[in-house]
Amino acid sequence: MNCIIITIGDELLIGQVIDTNSAWLARELNALGIAVTRRVSVGDDWQAIWQALDNAIESAELVLITGGLGPTADDITKPLLCQYFGGKLIVNDQVLAHVRAIFERINSDRGGKPRPMLERNLKQAEVPDVCEVLHNPAGTAPGMLFQKNGTMVISMPGVPHEMKEIMRQAVLPRLRQNENLGVVEHRTLLTAGQGESYVAERIQAFENALPKHIRLAYLPSYGMVRLRLTGIGTDRVIVEEELDQQFEKLKQEVFDLLVTDRDEQLHQVVLRLLAERGETLAMAESCTGGYMAHLVTQIPGSSSVFMGSAVVYSNAAKHSVLGVPIETIEQQGAVSEAVVRDMVEGCLLKFGSRYAMAVSGIMGPGGGSDEKPVGTVWIAVGNAHKIEAQQMRFRFDRHRNIELTANYAFNLLRLFMLRQ
Amino acid sequence: MNCIIITIGDELLIGQVIDTNSAWLARELNALGIAVTRRVSVGDDWQAIWQALDNAIESAELVLITGGLGPTADDITKPLLCQYFGGKLIVNDQVLAHVRAIFERINSDRGGKPRPMLERNLKQAEVPDVCEVLHNPAGTAPGMLFQKNGTMVISMPGVPHEMKEIMRQAVLPRLRQNENLGVVEHRTLLTAGQGESYVAERIQAFENALPKHIRLAYLPSYGMVRLRLTGIGTDRVIVEEELDQQFEKLKQEVFDLLVTDRDEQLHQVVLRLLAERGETLAMAESCTGGYMAHLVTQIPGSSSVFMGSAVVYSNAAKHSVLGVPIETIEQQGAVSEAVVRDMVEGCLLKFGSRYAMAVSGIMGPGGGSDEKPVGTVWIAVGNAHKIEAQQMRFRFDRHRNIELTANYAFNLLRLFMLRQ
Repeated sequence: MNCIIITIGDELLIGQVIDTNSAWLARELNALGIAVTRRVSVGDDWQAIWQALDNAIESAELVLITGGLGPTADDITKPLLCQYFGGKLIVNDQVLAHVRAIFERINSDRGGKPRPMLERNLKQAEVPDVCEVLHNPAGTAPGMLFQKNGTMVISMPGVPHEMKEIMRQAVLPRLRQNENLGVVEHRTLLTAGQGESYVAERIQAFENALPKHIRLAYLPSYGMVRLRLTGIGTDRVIVEEELDQQFEKLKQEVFDLLVTDRDEQLHQVVLRLLAERGETLAMAESCTGGYMAHLVTQIPGSSSVFMGSAVVYSNAAKHSVLGVPIETIEQQGAVSEAVVRDMVEGCLLKFGSRYAMAVSGIMGPGGGSDEKPVGTVWIAVGNAHKIEAQQMRFRFDRHRNIELTANYAFNLLRLFMLRQ
Repeated sequence: MNCIIITIGDELLIGQVIDTNSAWLARELNALGIAVTRRVSVGDDWQAIWQALDNAIESAELVLITGGLGPTADDITKPLLCQYFGGKLIVNDQVLAHVRAIFERINSDRGGKPRPMLERNLKQAEVPDVCEVLHNPAGTAPGMLFQKNGTMVISMPGVPHEMKEIMRQAVLPRLRQNENLGVVEHRTLLTAGQGESYVAERIQAFENALPKHIRLAYLPSYGMVRLRLTGIGTDRVIVEEELDQQFEKLKQEVFDLLVTDRDEQLHQVVLRLLAERGETLAMAESCTGGYMAHLVTQIPGSSSVFMGSAVVYSNAAKHSVLGVPIETIEQQGAVSEAVVRDMVEGCLLKFGSRYAMAVSGIMGPGGGSDEKPVGTVWIAVGNAHKIEAQQMRFRFDRHRNIELTANYAFNLLRLFMLRQ
């Protein structure tokens, strides 16, 4: 089964928002063995939506549409779908009851003056009489399912958590019952320490010997290269067996660069190691400004191993929060080996964690000097017995320098932990 | 002039990476008056790329392609483009010299054992003889410009900072010289305090009275609604004048909800207010785990007003870093008015800032109780003279709860600052 994803909204074409729905949908579909063959974004434009729908129905068995269903006037998707599939809009009693219930709940939560239901909220209960309504537990705009020429077309609101709830509760269970699903399986590993070209050179023979139905892909990002093997077939057992064999070979080829053989990010590897050992971590961030802590705390359950981070952006804070001596900062500069070592020490003391990591650097665009140009970063990691420090020099923009610093710091900590 | 953006890469179709290139490209093109009419993502698949190219050339004067140009074997875009435009691959001497120079620079930076140039690196210097080469100052894969049937087709690598450099240095200057550019202008404002439906209801008369060539769009996100007016025309002076008139009217319609009439995010408004007044900010984050600090420190120059953040994830850290009394935490719980008030006080003291903000809450999925369910958050903002606290109850997933908490906290601080 193959799928085309259509996302609708002018905001996608003027770059005001980044489309995260498509990636989420693609992951969920892939896990079911449904291949996404194309993703298309069009504006709130009748003709463009119509044409995208025409093209998609022609070449896919499943079409998922997100966006264009909100309560405001810039939304034209519902009337278009109604006309496209030859129906008329009618009030759906269940949706109407649901919309009313949502308003009652909001009003009872707030107390005070109740919010009246508006004409435009009631309109959300109107659906084409040629669709099957998919319940939206998280909002007022329902999902809609249409059938045409053997293609299933499903329209959902663009608000990510509403779309996801409709997918989880109504769409994915239905797709799972489909008998025509192929098998698409992935195995992913993460390497650090060598660039894309060198990794490719090293595993060239392996890649050339791969059977046709197993593909290798390189996904380089911020000082690391992710390698993905994809196996396609009809029998899950056979596909998995072949894929696992090849994956074992691949792991041996890159054993010295291997960070993880699971589909997880570097900071997730660190969290997992900590949890497995029953140990804890704290950090002191200057130049990453809270980004490393944010990465860690996005993961549910991280509070069991993560004590916190001192985001000490000012020099005064490096002293007052972490006890870094003023003289050290004045003599060595805030971006120096001495300061990051002191930050690790202060961090271990303040947070009482087993491990600590610290970074200080110049992320740009301003703040550089001849001696310490933009991209200069000091990283330290350690525990009560030992602290190791390393200087890096990145050449990129602020955003990329922050990402690179975080990745190098987490990898340094990972290697330090593995040596303990 | 209209444009279609094609992004290439299997990783986009299996959801392993989120496409941020398209949004950046769309913003840059829009600023020039070039309308993006469609965005398409296809995999590393010969037929899919070919067809997307065919369709795009048929309906746009400009086609921008990103991705599929790296040094590894999963990249098929260059040979495809060569065949599509009827050329053959030849070594380009300038690109070759550039690739060699990059390797020499890397090797001199590293010292130690030099990295040899590989066959596949040299291959990057091969380009179709029917294209104009666009210099890539940030990497080894060059951009390529083709012409067909009056359409300009430009292919660039998918690595964001390489793509951006080619755009800035080679593509945008050339597009600016085009005489067929229309005028597309936007005015954007941000509101907080009412949902999309209510804002729409309030400005319905304004919206209905808008001339045809000015469109209004609603962009709701995390407790706020952004309103965007878009004016289209041929004469920049006329478009801007009309748009500014309507924008003034719109601002009056929503004056009491208005956060900013610039295209900036809420935390940027707070930073701007601080900078204008010469005041400083620090924060204490429990449940947002560094996200608020990350938002602030992504902005270049934030170090002039931002002192830092104490990410006190554990209860022990709330005490040891910020001096919140153990008894308060034990008696009231970590998610309580007393604790966030103490966090603000500790924060003002430790960081010596003019203002401080603090949040503590239960983001989910775990950690909730009957009394304090997932989504319960306490926020406090204040200065040395006054601290204000507020309880929120969000109903969403971890990611969304974190975003909502940050937005409500920044807005509470903004309102507090405006009252001072």
